[in-house]
Amino acid sequence: MAKFQKHVFICGNQRDPEAPRGSCDPTGKGELQKAFKDRLTELGLKRTIRANKSGCLDQCEHGPTVLVYPEAVWYGRVQLSDVDEIIQSHLVGGVPVARLVLPEECINTRECPHKPRVKN
Amino acid sequence: MAKFQKHVFICGNQRDPEAPRGSCDPTGKGELQKAFKDRLTELGLKRTIRANKSGCLDQCEHGPTVLVYPEAVWYGRVQLSDVDEIIQSHLVGGVPVARLVLPEECINTRECPHKPRVKN
Repeated sequence: MAKFQKHVFICGNQRDPEAPRGSCDPTGKGELQKAFKDRLTELGLKRTIRANKSGCLDQCEHGPTVLVYPEAVWYGRVQLSDVDEIIQSHLVGGVPVARLVLPEECINTRECPHKPRVKN
Repeated sequence: MAKFQKHVFICGNQRDPEAPRGSCDPTGKGELQKAFKDRLTELGLKRTIRANKSGCLDQCEHGPTVLVYPEAVWYGRVQLSDVDEIIQSHLVGGVPVARLVLPEECINTRECPHKPRVKN
C-alpha cells in the first residue's frame, strides 16, 4: 500500500458563535472527524482511507464541510448521522452521496447565494 | 472558478518534543502554512490555490509534511526556504520539486526505513 486510496478532510474550524460565516465545528470537539476515524477503524479501513482533521476549508456557509480527495468531492452540512452513508456509498462503494454534495457553483464563488459576504 | 486548482495541506501537528515519531510543527506556530498562504496571496493566487492547515497526515518521520491534491504529491522535510520553489515549480509550473518528494515506498508502509515504529 502507498498513498491513501481516499483522503477525507473534515473541517474542524471553530469560530465565535456570532461569526457571520458560521463555523464547521461550533463545539471544537472534532466529533465529526472522530466519527469518521472510529468507523473506518472498525471496518479495518484506516490504513487505506484516512479521516483527517483539517483547518478551515473556506466553505463555511455550507458547513460542516467534508472534502474527499483525490476526486475533490465536496460535501456540505454533514451530520454525524451521515457518516456511515458517506463511508459505505462513497468511500467504499465509489458513489458519492448526491444529496450532500456541494454544487460546483457554490464552491469558491462570490455568486453563490449562500455566501452573501465572501472574504477577499 | 470553482474547486481549487491545487489544494495544499501543510501539517500543523505538534507533539511533545520527546515523541519518537517527531512532529511536523514543533513550535505550534504554523509558520510553514502561513508562509505558503502569504506568498500565494502576494502572487494573487489565493482563490485558485489554497494553503490549508492540516491535522496529522501520519507521515511524521518525514515531516514537516506537505501534501498537494488533486495529484497526491507528498513532500517531506519541507522548510520555509522551500516554499517559493514549491509554489513556482509545482503549483504554478506543474513540475513537482523532485528533491523533496517522498518516495512512494515511504508512504504508509511499515517497511519504510525511516519509520521504525509504525502505529497500527
